[in-house]
Order: sequence, then structure tokens, then C-alpha cells
Amino acid sequence: MATRCGFQNLIGGSFVDSHSSDSIDVLNPATQEVVSRVPLTTKDEFKSAVAAAKEAFPSWRNTPITTRQRVMFKLQDLIRKNTRFWFWLSPYHEHFLEEVVEHACGMATLQMGEYVANVSNGIDTYSIREPLGVCAGICPFNFPAMIPLWMFPVAVTCGNTYVLKPSEKDPGASMILAELAMEAGLPNGVLNIVHGTHDIVNAICDDDDIRAVSFVGSNTAGMHIYARASASGKRVQSNMGAKNHGIVMPDANVDATLNALVAAGFGAAGQRCMALSTVVFVGDSKLWEDKLVERAKALKVSAGTDPEADLGPVISKQVRQRKGSASWYKAGSKVEQDCLLDGRTIKVPGYEQGNFIGPTILADVTADMECYKEEIFGPVLICMQADSLEEAINIVNRNKYGNGAAIFTSSGIAARKFQTEIEAGQVGINVPIPVPLPFFSFTGSKASFAGDLNFYGKAGVQFYIQIKTVTQQWKDLPSGAGVSLAMPTSQKS
Amino acid sequence: MATRCGFQNLIGGSFVDSHSSDSIDVLNPATQEVVSRVPLTTKDEFKSAVAAAKEAFPSWRNTPITTRQRVMFKLQDLIRKNTRFWFWLSPYHEHFLEEVVEHACGMATLQMGEYVANVSNGIDTYSIREPLGVCAGICPFNFPAMIPLWMFPVAVTCGNTYVLKPSEKDPGASMILAELAMEAGLPNGVLNIVHGTHDIVNAICDDDDIRAVSFVGSNTAGMHIYARASASGKRVQSNMGAKNHGIVMPDANVDATLNALVAAGFGAAGQRCMALSTVVFVGDSKLWEDKLVERAKALKVSAGTDPEADLGPVISKQVRQRKGSASWYKAGSKVEQDCLLDGRTIKVPGYEQGNFIGPTILADVTADMECYKEEIFGPVLICMQADSLEEAINIVNRNKYGNGAAIFTSSGIAARKFQTEIEAGQVGINVPIPVPLPFFSFTGSKASFAGDLNFYGKAGVQFYIQIKTVTQQWKDLPSGAGVSLAMPTSQKS
Amino acid sequence: MATRCGFQNLIGGSFVDSHSSDSIDVLNPATQEVVSRVPLTTKDEFKSAVAAAKEAFPSWRNTPITTRQRVMFKLQDLIRKNTRFWFWLSPYHEHFLEEVVEHACGMATLQMGEYVANVSNGIDTYSIREPLGVCAGICPFNFPAMIPLWMFPVAVTCGNTYVLKPSEKDPGASMILAELAMEAGLPNGVLNIVHGTHDIVNAICDDDDIRAVSFVGSNTAGMHIYARASASGKRVQSNMGAKNHGIVMPDANVDATLNALVAAGFGAAGQRCMALSTVVFVGDSKLWEDKLVERAKALKVSAGTDPEADLGPVISKQVRQRKGSASWYKAGSKVEQDCLLDGRTIKVPGYEQGNFIGPTILADVTADMECYKEEIFGPVLICMQADSLEEAINIVNRNKYGNGAAIFTSSGIAARKFQTEIEAGQVGINVPIPVPLPFFSFTGSKASFAGDLNFYGKAGVQFYIQIKTVTQQWKDLPSGAGVSLAMPTSQKS
Amino acid sequence: MATRCGFQNLIGGSFVDSHSSDSIDVLNPATQEVVSRVPLTTKDEFKSAVAAAKEAFPSWRNTPITTRQRVMFKLQDLIRKNTRFWFWLSPYHEHFLEEVVEHACGMATLQMGEYVANVSNGIDTYSIREPLGVCAGICPFNFPAMIPLWMFPVAVTCGNTYVLKPSEKDPGASMILAELAMEAGLPNGVLNIVHGTHDIVNAICDDDDIRAVSFVGSNTAGMHIYARASASGKRVQSNMGAKNHGIVMPDANVDATLNALVAAGFGAAGQRCMALSTVVFVGDSKLWEDKLVERAKALKVSAGTDPEADLGPVISKQVRQRKGSASWYKAGSKVEQDCLLDGRTIKVPGYEQGNFIGPTILADVTADMECYKEEIFGPVLICMQADSLEEAINIVNRNKYGNGAAIFTSSGIAARKFQTEIEAGQVGINVPIPVPLPFFSFTGSKASFAGDLNFYGKAGVQFYIQIKTVTQQWKDLPSGAGVSLAMPTSQKS
Repeated sequence: MATRCGFQNLIGGSFVDSHSSDSIDVLNPATQEVVSRVPLTTKDEFKSAVAAAKEAFPSWRNTPITTRQRVMFKLQDLIRKNTRFWFWLSPYHEHFLEEVVEHACGMATLQMGEYVANVSNGIDTYSIREPLGVCAGICPFNFPAMIPLWMFPVAVTCGNTYVLKPSEKDPGASMILAELAMEAGLPNGVLNIVHGTHDIVNAICDDDDIRAVSFVGSNTAGMHIYARASASGKRVQSNMGAKNHGIVMPDANVDATLNALVAAGFGAAGQRCMALSTVVFVGDSKLWEDKLVERAKALKVSAGTDPEADLGPVISKQVRQRKGSASWYKAGSKVEQDCLLDGRTIKVPGYEQGNFIGPTILADVTADMECYKEEIFGPVLICMQADSLEEAINIVNRNKYGNGAAIFTSSGIAARKFQTEIEAGQVGINVPIPVPLPFFSFTGSKASFAGDLNFYGKAGVQFYIQIKTVTQQWKDLPSGAGVSLAMPTSQKS
Repeated sequence: MATRCGFQNLIGGSFVDSHSSDSIDVLNPATQEVVSRVPLTTKDEFKSAVAAAKEAFPSWRNTPITTRQRVMFKLQDLIRKNTRFWFWLSPYHEHFLEEVVEHACGMATLQMGEYVANVSNGIDTYSIREPLGVCAGICPFNFPAMIPLWMFPVAVTCGNTYVLKPSEKDPGASMILAELAMEAGLPNGVLNIVHGTHDIVNAICDDDDIRAVSFVGSNTAGMHIYARASASGKRVQSNMGAKNHGIVMPDANVDATLNALVAAGFGAAGQRCMALSTVVFVGDSKLWEDKLVERAKALKVSAGTDPEADLGPVISKQVRQRKGSASWYKAGSKVEQDCLLDGRTIKVPGYEQGNFIGPTILADVTADMECYKEEIFGPVLICMQADSLEEAINIVNRNKYGNGAAIFTSSGIAARKFQTEIEAGQVGINVPIPVPLPFFSFTGSKASFAGDLNFYGKAGVQFYIQIKTVTQQWKDLPSGAGVSLAMPTSQKS
Repeated sequence: MATRCGFQNLIGGSFVDSHSSDSIDVLNPATQEVVSRVPLTTKDEFKSAVAAAKEAFPSWRNTPITTRQRVMFKLQDLIRKNTRFWFWLSPYHEHFLEEVVEHACGMATLQMGEYVANVSNGIDTYSIREPLGVCAGICPFNFPAMIPLWMFPVAVTCGNTYVLKPSEKDPGASMILAELAMEAGLPNGVLNIVHGTHDIVNAICDDDDIRAVSFVGSNTAGMHIYARASASGKRVQSNMGAKNHGIVMPDANVDATLNALVAAGFGAAGQRCMALSTVVFVGDSKLWEDKLVERAKALKVSAGTDPEADLGPVISKQVRQRKGSASWYKAGSKVEQDCLLDGRTIKVPGYEQGNFIGPTILADVTADMECYKEEIFGPVLICMQADSLEEAINIVNRNKYGNGAAIFTSSGIAARKFQTEIEAGQVGINVPIPVPLPFFSFTGSKASFAGDLNFYGKAGVQFYIQIKTVTQQWKDLPSGAGVSLAMPTSQKS
Repeated sequence: MATRCGFQNLIGGSFVDSHSSDSIDVLNPATQEVVSRVPLTTKDEFKSAVAAAKEAFPSWRNTPITTRQRVMFKLQDLIRKNTRFWFWLSPYHEHFLEEVVEHACGMATLQMGEYVANVSNGIDTYSIREPLGVCAGICPFNFPAMIPLWMFPVAVTCGNTYVLKPSEKDPGASMILAELAMEAGLPNGVLNIVHGTHDIVNAICDDDDIRAVSFVGSNTAGMHIYARASASGKRVQSNMGAKNHGIVMPDANVDATLNALVAAGFGAAGQRCMALSTVVFVGDSKLWEDKLVERAKALKVSAGTDPEADLGPVISKQVRQRKGSASWYKAGSKVEQDCLLDGRTIKVPGYEQGNFIGPTILADVTADMECYKEEIFGPVLICMQADSLEEAINIVNRNKYGNGAAIFTSSGIAARKFQTEIEAGQVGINVPIPVPLPFFSFTGSKASFAGDLNFYGKAGVQFYIQIKTVTQQWKDLPSGAGVSLAMPTSQKS
């Protein structure tokens, strides 16, 4: 856990101080205060964590699935009751915490093998789902509790053991989750935590005892991990960047649509992969821009701990500086007045040092502008325009990302056309980009995801298990029968 | 198809001669005669093939699933009726051809999305399975018809289009299959065929328009492809080498077990990934070695076209020479007499130039010997020994491969222990390593497979599709409702 | 098959003449000619048919599922190629024949059991799906080929044996199907055919060797069979009457909607359970009635063998007389002029004796009128009216039947409200009542269906199988351990 | 709940006294003391309960599935923590309480519909699972908490509302469960409780507002309910009597087998449908009878509240008298000495009035004896004998019941033959008859079950839901297209 000296590693069931001489400061983004320190877990400590996970595996994989499920039932209860989270989570308005844990409570059903009796005379075939061994997860800063909860509950309930690397920017929630998981009955060594940045990520990718890696974060890191961990034969699932578009049809419900755009565009200060960062107004719906600005102006920017805050600060000073620079959102833009709302100069009383950016709206953006090409990950809503649904869909499909896209319309025909033709993994119809509930999966596509099996849901379970196929023959075999060299299970008819 | 000048490319529905100046001779392994020639498809021709697949995709993916299934029903019928195969397949005693095609006939059921109404008030979530786009398959020589049929029928019935690279050693079966598929109604460009070796493999790995690669073959090639194709963000499934063990318990049925060992050890001249190449005799079952030799001796070695042949030739002269060399199977072996049966010097009348190796049995092999450490891929059966089932299982689990393993016993306790503890993807109980029927998957593990989703079965279908998750809200929304910035689908309770 | 003396029974693989002295004439409904005769299978012959099915069961249930599937693959091919059907089917414009057979081709996947290893220490549980034994099907006249094909292909591919009772009005198609099934490889006794009316139906309900009964037909017969067969402990699935409504919203596409109404209202002369017999015009869409009459008038009424016929005759003289009577459709109606189109007096040249009724449209019908309360099963379209979607849905939901309902609209909101609130098993949105493709099920509800498991799809498979749950423990048990009387599989944690 | 005057009805969320003048005494079977009184719920009160359930339905079915699941998560927690149960449950040594509630926590996954896009051009089909409405459960005395928990948690989590009739012999546990369910958040009217005997059972069968009935109990009652409730069109699942056999092979582990026989034969005083009441010794295993008697003698018979009791009393004086009578277990028996152990005359100090029967073992029983033909439901173990496994299987299969059967053996061949050929729904291999964990179903067969869909597991969920199949078409339809009268969704190819 966190001591005066900073966060600890969790190895084999014990929270232990790192011997690393290097550490990273965790800052409160609203004040720049140092909240804690994260060590750079040393190579030896990392090896110990993997070794602890490896040692815990045989016993944990042989623990009945019903017992493993019961740990999740208790964890669900503990998460719901626990309030210690909120200190760490408050800047992020995080919900959706216990959902994936609840999903893991039904693991026996989710990981069933299959049985076919008598596939050929006297021969049965069946499949068994087995855990992989040691798995690892690498987490981003923006959902410090939700993303770890997408990873280890599924993995360990399948019977795997785990090495988790939280974001070095906010590892606190992961530490508490680990404590709760052990309180719920997770044996020592089943969940381990290490800290750090590039080096530890590479160590995870390269380690021969790690069988699978889950990652959520930026495209640069995600593609690096996908390639590097694959090169050593691992399974990888990598959830990456996004540029989520919302298409607004003129027949949409005006109020509901504008509310949705403001909520999805500025919620969490735009720092979530499901933020809706680009609006494509079709035809006359462009006229609603003014109302959009009006509603965005009404949002309150303050520290995440302020219960009335609609937007908190962005995660770090560097991000704020980069994003706040004049060059950033005008690049490629022709006229200054395209900035309908400018949040650069906002001051939040009492938090003058905070990394704040106010709601910002850019109009008349085109696909060649810098502000469109990059993932901004801040409270900036970009407005584009199209003459037809067809054209709007083309704009979205030409974007390299495929995380999510939404349409706002009252027409069943428009919605079905959009749903069918849009190239994005999460599709919203009159809802901004939704995070699917955990019995479905988080299904990014194109450059937003690398891998075969998405996070949580049924796919997420499959990512953490492998199939063993058994063919059995139990019969009083005739003695001295002739030898046939044909392949054994081929059916004859 | 094959012309006098050799095999052609299949691009956009047309069989066309390659402009390549290089080609590879296809030899009859029983005679060294040149049967045909395979061109090295040029870079431009490859690009044309991918372009043809890409062009065919939009229309094919929008073809109703029921229509795509009907093409498979017709292909099943054509494969069953067609006899042209047997010229190309005869050396390999191939069965199991139409099975995966039959599995693809049920694709509508296999690729269903899921629907949950009212996940929160007035909101429904559902998932749709969609094809990926252009996919590619890289095939080995040993099952020239079966392996291509593991790949493209599943892929195209899911709505993908395909670029197939058959083995340069025997592309004939693939060419006929493509002809039949088109006769069955597969539109132009949905299946394309290119030829070649390393360069074409790398081109497939690197091409940005190819979304997924299926590979069956050696470990060296397979790991190269897994890493290289992953580096460009592709999905990869790679089925690789094997060292399949059979554990013989003293309580096994003697006759049935020996027959199974001979069949699985020497069938297809050992050139299949499901060959059972290593026997581990537990306790007194070692005494059965003599009978094993006796039965192996009775096998007839001849050209694959000889209907009475039990074993055909190995695939190429080089392989024969390497495998036949004295150094090969004695490496690490202490005494000559451990070779219970020596097939090196076999002569097959009428086929004096053939790449023949007779059934060979090596006794008292230990895990440190060369002949054990490598995949032999020839008609060589290696015999080891253990004092207990525990020890025998440890021998198997220490081997890097995890393709298949079998036990021969009459004890339910032994079988269950084996099934539970053995680290192999295909498990046989009183059957040598089976190829699972296509409603299951071919589930190699450890070094025998890289990827998340195995070939055919339900996993094979998932490899070729991606999930789109749709969340829809259709309600008369109240106007002017307040804005909440919480994530949209998070459940509240 | 059919001889001069009429149709034969099929018992144990042989077509045999009935010894019954009674028979029923099969008439050509377009001419009243006697086409053939159907015997009333005697009690003894019925017993023989059941006995043959019972005898065939042990061997057929032990035939590998893959072999049983192959019979279906061949049957699919034979049905597609065979033209002998069309004599018997021509009056009914029947499609959708091979679909359920194709579904049965994937039976291995559809009937998989499930496997969970190590549910508690050293204990595995798995389930196996097994056939029931002898099953029976009782068919209606209106789809003489399709309905038998909903029944026996699913049942026999699951491993059951079958006794089929076709409609006494048109058993010809069933006879041909049985012939083809045997040609495809169905062993003797697996499918048997008996003929008759009430007595044979009761004999089926009461027979102790029959385990399950499938029925499609009228409500009176269906409820009788559901109660009587249940009383002897059988499974029953009973598909019964319908009164399918189409709600027309003013925002619907006029042309597409009218075409759909005419097709679904008058196709098969209204004699199908999916006929759309009642239109509810919401608001101004009532104004489209004139155009509806216009299109209905353009339909050609003639013998089913006339390739240009849009409507054929109804099934029997009695039906025609009852339906054609003036009292019939005016009962409860206030004014004569509500009959917008009157088909009673139609004459079809060359078929003066045919049971023809022309397209008939009644307007301003209310829920208390006779013509609304009964299932008409003829080419009569009833028009009602509602002021709002809410009111229209209430009209439909108050009807006792729940087979199908459709809405025509361009509004996503209207469609979702309809889909959610309507009490009907088959829902069409801009399609008239659809027959679901066979990977779904035919899901009537309320008075239109009795039973738990619908026809075909996954539910249809489950109807014909039972689950066996196996719990196995294979371990070296410690000797002399103490006795615990707790229930054995209860999990402890 | 229970007042001084006895148990109350639960109607619409309120526990209310019955106005019935009749009531039944609930006795402590160990002392004959009157513990409480159960009213005979009046017809009007019953109608009120159904009406309350009907009224609660629309709102509850529209409550999001995720919210309904959360109620089950809380109920699971409450059941685990609550100790009030044990007063009511103590005589029955009941475990397996929260398991089915845990299963219901995964309902969103268990009740997913399916989605196939583009089944034909521009048409999508999907299915939605919906609750039925008001459902009812009729419970037996022997598991006063477990059986109600098999019923209402599954039903209400699917969105149904419920009327529960506990056993009139011990309704206490049901009352507490209802209290806990409401504490967990179940809204008023979703679960209602009525009391009584035949009349209330018939009222449930006949009520038009009840859509489905679940029953567990005797064959006489079960078949009556199956027939009567079916006659009014309901779904019924009826779990009935049992005669569970254990086959003992000479190669079985002696100690483990004898322990299992004693535990399964005498646990809960034999009063459970999974009691193993008949042993079939094959060959020399008969010699183990003496040891069996020895172990049975060592069991302690006492009140259920005695923590050291192995066996409690049987449920009522009448049962005890019937079962204890000399005529009972000798009927058809030739010689007195076949009674190896006689529990008739047992006296339990301190509980002289208790309905106690001690462990009783009858040897050399044959299938024609009375004691074999009836379900005894007491602590009586019957021993039979067979010369071969074949013969032993035949004995079991000739019995009319099909609840469960077990084999004790070390042979994989014997186990597989048994598993394949035995006609019983629950199969144990080296475990006495197991109650399957709730991700499987309780799958009795033959006379032990009537219905299509078994209790709990996936089948149990399907019993409580119906399928709605939606076909949607959203396209810009061409105007004025010609009319086709073919059935709308039939695929063309």
C-alpha cells in the first residue's frame, strides 16, 4: 500500500517497499501538490512478482471454480461498501466499478467446455477450458479503478495468476482493490502489483513466464506492446486511442441530443476513450451550434473534489500546456472565429495552479486539420459538417480509429443504415458512445484495438483461457484387429 | 489452374499465368519426376490478388449469410463427388476434407450476435458479428487439401475475402478446391491464390489491407509470421510443430494399444502434426516393444498411388537425406542396438529414386537426445520409459510442444489424472492423437500454437469476425432535461 | 406411397397398404376431382408403426451424430433437386422447404452438452444431450411439405425415431419426403407414417411408447392434444391459431406498405398461420384504404397450377361455403357498404367447381364483430382504426392470439415501442409477419402456442432431447475416511 | 410471517393473517410438539395474491435486468449471513441454499436473445427473451428452503412475478426467504405466499392468470398437476419420485464406496429425492454387505437440533407408522433374516415421541418385492445383486423412475458403459447421486420428471421466459414495386 515513502509493490501477498532509488511523483492535478510517490519497481522485484504468481498458479488453478466465484461475490460486496476509493477516484467521476466483478461471479457458466457423446462409434469428444498461467495487465491513468477491474477479476476467476502494473500517475485505486481482493479471499500470490514506466512494460512483454498481456492506453504504447509481446509468443489484447464521432441528423430530438453532446464531450474533461470529441452536423442541424455553446458555457470547472464540478482538471501540467497552446487547435484552421468557445484561459479560484482547460468548441473543422487528426483527450469538441448521412458516414469511416460512433436521429432507416455501414466497434443510437455492460464486451475496432478477443464479456473470458480437447474411447476392444493408418477421428459415412 | 507451364495464380476469379521468371519444380516424391511447376508470384501479382479481394469484399459481406451458407452446401456436395483430388492427395492418405465445409454450413448459428433488451431504462444493447475484410492463409505441404479447407471456407462464409498461399510443394489440391468453390457459387475475387516462398509470406505479413493471417507449418516459420504480422497490427493464428507422446500403462489393452501406436506413428509416413512420435512405456508395458517391432515390420512401404501401401515416401529428397543419415537418430544415443527397427536402407521396387524411409523404432531414448529434442516428421517412433504415470506425465510436460498427448489404460483414475495434468491441447484416452471433429477446434497449446483463437470450430469462426456492439435508445425524450456528465450506460442501483 | 387404392402406411421401412375399410377422398380444391384416397390407419397398424419406431431406436440413437447429420446433407440435396413435389404443393406456393433440414445439418453443434472440470475437489460435472425415443408429429393441410419438415428432420437427427401423421387432406408431400429421406440414408423404422383423423390423433396422445408430440393446426385440436398428451406425461409443442395484425402508421412508406399488406393478406388465399388478416390504420393512414382495394382487385384468382395465379382456391367446399356466406362477414357489422371488396361471387373460368373466394376487404370493423373474433383462414382482410399507436397496440394485445404482429413506420421510436409492448411472438417491422429462418424459432405466444419449446431453431432441438448430467470422481481415495451425510456435490467455501 | 396464530399469507408486499377458519398444525417431528399453525389460504386470499402478482408484473418486467440482478446479489449476501433459518432447517441438514441465487446473479448472460444481421437483403432478425407473467411454485416438505430457492429466484430475476405455496408441513423457511428477498429490494407483489393443500394446488392449476407452474414432490401429486395445469394451457415442470440405484463393481475402492453408500442412503433420513435407496452389488462386491451394516450401525439417530445427529426423525407420525410396520419391508420378502439391520424399534432418549426410524438394511431383495417397487423415502437401504454390469444396468433401467443412478468402479470402460446406457437423469461415477450445481440443471427423467425444461441451470431459465422474434426492415423502399405473394422471409438463392 502507500506509505509515507510512497506506494509499495505487492508480491506474493505482501505489500513491500521497493528498493528502487528512482520514483515518480503523483501530483494532484488541481493543485500540483505531491500526493504520493510511485517507485520504479526493480528488475529483481519484478522477477519476484512473476515468480510469486507462478508459484501460486498450480494451487489456484486447481481450486474449484465455485470457490473462485465466491471470492468475486465477496469482492463485489466490498467494492460497493468501500469508500476509501473516492479519494483516488474523485477527479474521474468513475462509475462502472463492480460490474465486471459481477460478471466474473458467473464464471462457471462462462467457461464451460462442450461435450459430444459418440462422435464416432464408442468415442466421445469434449473440451475443457483451462487457465493460461501468469498473465499481466498494463493500465492507463484515466480510469484508475475501472480498467484494473476489467483485467484481473476476469483473469483470476478463470484460474490465472496476475501481475498488474497500474498507471504511474495514479496507482492508488489499484492498491486498494488489491487489498479488498485479498480481504475477499484471494490467496497470496494470485494478484501482484509492480510499478514503473517503459522498462517495466518491456519486462512484461519479454518475460517467458507471462502468457498474456492486457493493455489499455495510447496507440504508440499499445502497438509497441502488441508487437513486442507477440514476438515472444504471448497473447495480447490492446485497447488504444479513439476519435469518437457523433452524427447529428436534422430530425433528432434537439434537447436530448445537445445534452448528450455536452455530457459526452466534456465529461471527465474529455479524458476517456469513450469521449465524444467530434460532432458531424448533417444539413440543418448545424444551426444548433449556438445552443451547444450555451450549454457548454454553463458547465462548472473545478477540482474533482468539488461536488458541484462538472469538469475537473486534465491529468498533468504537460498535457495542459500542450493542449492549451494557441497553435494546437488552430493548426490548419483558417480563421480565429472558428473557435466558438475558448477554454484556454480559464481560472479556477482556489486552484490557480491546476491543470484546467475549460470547455472548448471548434467549428467548421475539416479532416485535414491537426486538431482533427490527433486524439486530443481534453475538453475540446470539434464540429464538422456534412450534406447527407452518406457523407457523414464516410467522414467517420475514413478516420483511422474505430472505437465508437453515435447517431442522433428519429428515423429507423437512418439508424439502421448507420449501424450497418459505420466502421466502429461501439455504436450508439441516440446515446453518446456507451461503455457496454459487462455481459457484452468493449469492442473497439480498426486502430483502436489490436488483438482477437476484446475486454470483458464472453470474449474477455476467452482471452484468459485455453481449450483442451479430449477424445476418449472406453470399449472392450477386439484383440488382434488389423491396423489401419488412417487418421483416427475422421468420420466415415 | 495448372497449365503446361505450371500452376497459375487465381486473381479476381481468373486463373492467370504468372509473369514471374522464377519457379519451383513440384516433384513426385516416389519417383523424383517433375510433375508440375509453381511460379513465384510477383509483387505486382500479389498486389492484384489483394486488390481483387478488397474489391470483392463490400458486396460479399453484404450478401445474406443464408446465401453464403448455400455456397458451402454446394461445395460440400462437389468435394464428395469429385475424384480429381486423388491424384494430388494420394501420397497423403488424406481424409477429413468436407468436414469443415459442413461446419461452415451452419454459420448463421455460429456467428449470432446477442441481444439484451432494456439494459437500463429504455435502452437496448446488442452485438453484431461482422467479417474483418481481406484475410490470408499460408499452408504446409503435408495436408494439401485439408489445411486450406480449415481456412478459407470458414473465412469466406463469415463474409471475408481471401488470399490463399498453398505450399509450393503441392499446390494442386488448392487449385482444384478453388475451382470447385467457384463452381459452387463463390463470386469472383472472394478467393484468390498466390504462390511462392519467403517473399510472398513476408508480403502477406506486411500488407496493410490484410487483416488476419492463418498459418500451419513449422515453428520457425510460424513464430516469424506471428511476430511479423502482429507488428503490423494483424490477427494471427499459427499452428506449429509437435512432439506427440503416447503413455502406455501396463493395464492397457495390448492389441488395441499396439495397433494404435503403429497406425499413429507411421501413418502418412509420420508427416503430420498429429503423428504420435514418442511412446512412454510405464512399468512393465515396456515388455511390449517386441510386439511393436513385429507389427511395424509388417507394414508395406510403397508409392502413395499403390492402393496397398501403408507408408508412402517422405516429401523431398533433402528431407530423406537428412532424416536417413546415421547421425540423425543416433545423436546423443549411446548404443547402436537401441535401434530396434531400421528403415534407412529400404528399397521400394519400381521406385528406386523415391524418398522412402521404412518404419524405424528407437528404444531407450532419453530427453537429452537429439532425436527426442527435434520434431522428426518422418516414420520414426521413439520409445521412452517411466516408472509411474506421474513420471510419464512429467516427461511430456517438460517437452516444449503442446499439440497432443495420449494415454492407453483401462483405469478411469489414470485417465482423469492424465486429462487434468497433461499440458497438451489435444488429449487422447485410448485413442492416438485425434484431430477433433470440426464442431470442436484444433487446440494445440504451448509451442505448438501461437494466438488466442484456434482453427475451426467456434474459435475458428471468431478468429474471422469482429464484434460491433450497438446501444440504442428510442424514446420520447423529455425536452430540456438537465445535463449529466456521467458515463452513459453505467447501471445505477 | 400412393397406389391406385390410395396412400399407404409407412411402417418399418416398407410402404404397405392399410387394411382399413374406411378412407377419405383427397380432392383437388380447384376442381373437386378425387385425386387420391387416404386410409384410416387401423389401431393395429398404428401399433406396428410405433413398434417399428421403438425397435429402430436403440441402433439409431447409437449411430454417431456425424452420420445422422450426413443423412440430412443428402436429404437437403434431394429436396432441392426433386420436382415431384410440385404436383402436391402447387396450390400452396410453398417455399422454405430445405431450410430446417439445413439447420439439422448442424446438429452436433446444436446439441452439445457442457463440461465443467473440478466443480469441487477432483469432481467433474458434465451434461450429455440424449434423444427421447419415439416421437410423433401431427400435421395440418396448409403447408403439406413445410410443416412435416419442421418436425421429423430435427427429431431424427437428434437420434429419435418418428411416427408422422400428415393431414388427411393432402398427405402426398409427406409420402415423397419419406421416400427421399430413406433414399438419403434414413434406416428402416426411423420414420413411419400413419393416416387418419381424430382416432389416430388420440391414439398418438395416449400411447405409452411415444414420448413427445408436435402439433400444428387449429386451437380446438391443439388444446385437446396439449391436455390429452400431457395427461399421459408426454412433452407437447402445439402451434395453433392466429389473428395477425398489421399496424400502419401515417409515416410509413405508402407503396411498400400496401404491397406488403396485399401480399400478406391474400397470399396462399389467407390459409396460413402467418397471414396478416387484420390491418389497424393509425390516424390518417386510413385514407390509404382505396389504394389497398385497387391493388387487391388486380390479383389473379385461379387454380394453383396456373403459373400466373396470385390466389388459389381454399382447401375444401365446406370451408368455401361457410366463408362465402353472407352472414359470415357481416355478423355484428352495421352496414353493407363496409365491405369494400367482395370476393364471394367470383367465378374462375375452367374451374367452375373450385372452392374459390376472391380477395375481400372489410372496413370499419370493431373488436366485437364476429369476423374479427374468429380466425377466418381465407382471403379476407379486415380493416380497423386507431387514433394513436398506444391504442393500436392495445387492440392487438387484447386479442387472444399471439402469433404475429407487424408495424409499418419510418420512426425508430414507434418501432421500438411496438417491439417492446406488443404481445406477439413474431414481430415484423416494415415486414408483414415473417416466418423466422430456421436458426431462430417459430415463436408464437398466448393462445397461438402451448408448450415451453417452440418449433425448430435451438428450442426445437431441445424439445427433442433430454439432458443427462454426469458427475464423476476419479481419484485415489483415502481409505477409511469418515462418513459425512451431507449432500455430495454441495460446494463449500 | 409467523404470528402466535400461525403463519401469514404474503400478498402484495404485506404479511397478513388469513381469514381461514381451517389450519394445519406444524409439528416438531422429534417431539410431536405443535410448533406453529398453517392456515388454509381462502379462495379470495388466493385471488388477491394472484392479483397482486399480476399488478406488480408490468413495472417489474420493465425494470432493467441489471437492477433485478442486483437484488439477487443482495439476497445472496443476506442468505449467507442469516441464521434465523437454522431453526426451520435444522432437521434437514440443508445445504445448497445460495447457489441458485448466485446463478440468478448472471441472468443477463443467461437470457440473452440472438441477433443475425442481413438474413436477407436489408432484413435483420433478432430474438428477445421476455418473462411470462405470473408464475407459481408448489413445494415439498423435505427441503423447505432449497426447493423454494430453485423456483422464485430464477423466475423473478427473469422478470416474472410469483405465487409460492410452501409445504404445509414446514413453511417457515419460505417465510424467512420472502422477508430477506424484500429486504434485498424485491418490490411489493413480486413474491407472494399462500398456504394450503389440495384445494390451493388445484386453484393454482386452474387460474387463468398463472402462466407456469413448478412442482417438486410425489408422483401422484406431480402427475395430477402436470395434467391439470396443462389442460388450462400452462407450462409445467414437475420433479417427482425417485428410486436411485447404486451399482457396486468388485473393482471399486471398498472404503470410499461404503462411505458413500451409507451417506447417501441414510442422509436426511432417506427423505430426499437424491437418496440412494438401492444398492446393486455386482459379483463379489456382495461380500461387502457386512461392512456396510457395521458402518450403518455406527450412525447416531437423534433430533435434528442435536449437532451430533447423523439421522433425524422422518417427517410425520403417519409416515413413521407406515414405514415402521413389519408388513412394509417384508412384503414379498421370503425370509425374515434378509433384514440385515432393523431400525424399527429404535428409541431416542429424550425424544420418545419422535418419528424415528433407525438405519435399516434389507438384503437379497428382488424387483418383484413391495419394498423395491415403492419409493420408501426413509432410512432404508435395499440390497440387490447382479452377475454382470449388463445385468445391473438392466435392473436399473427396468425401474420406472429415472432420477439418478451411480456406479462405483475403478474401470473407465465400466463407467463409460454405465454413463451411456443407464436411463437416469443424474449419473454418478464414484459419487452417490449428486445434486448438480446450479450452472447445470436438475435433470430427472422417465417417471421422475414431467415437462421439457428442468429446474435451474439454463433450462430452468428458459422455463420462465418466452421468445419474441423480431424481423426488421429499414430501407428506402422503391415506390410502386410489384406485389409478390410469397412468404416474406423465405430465403432465395
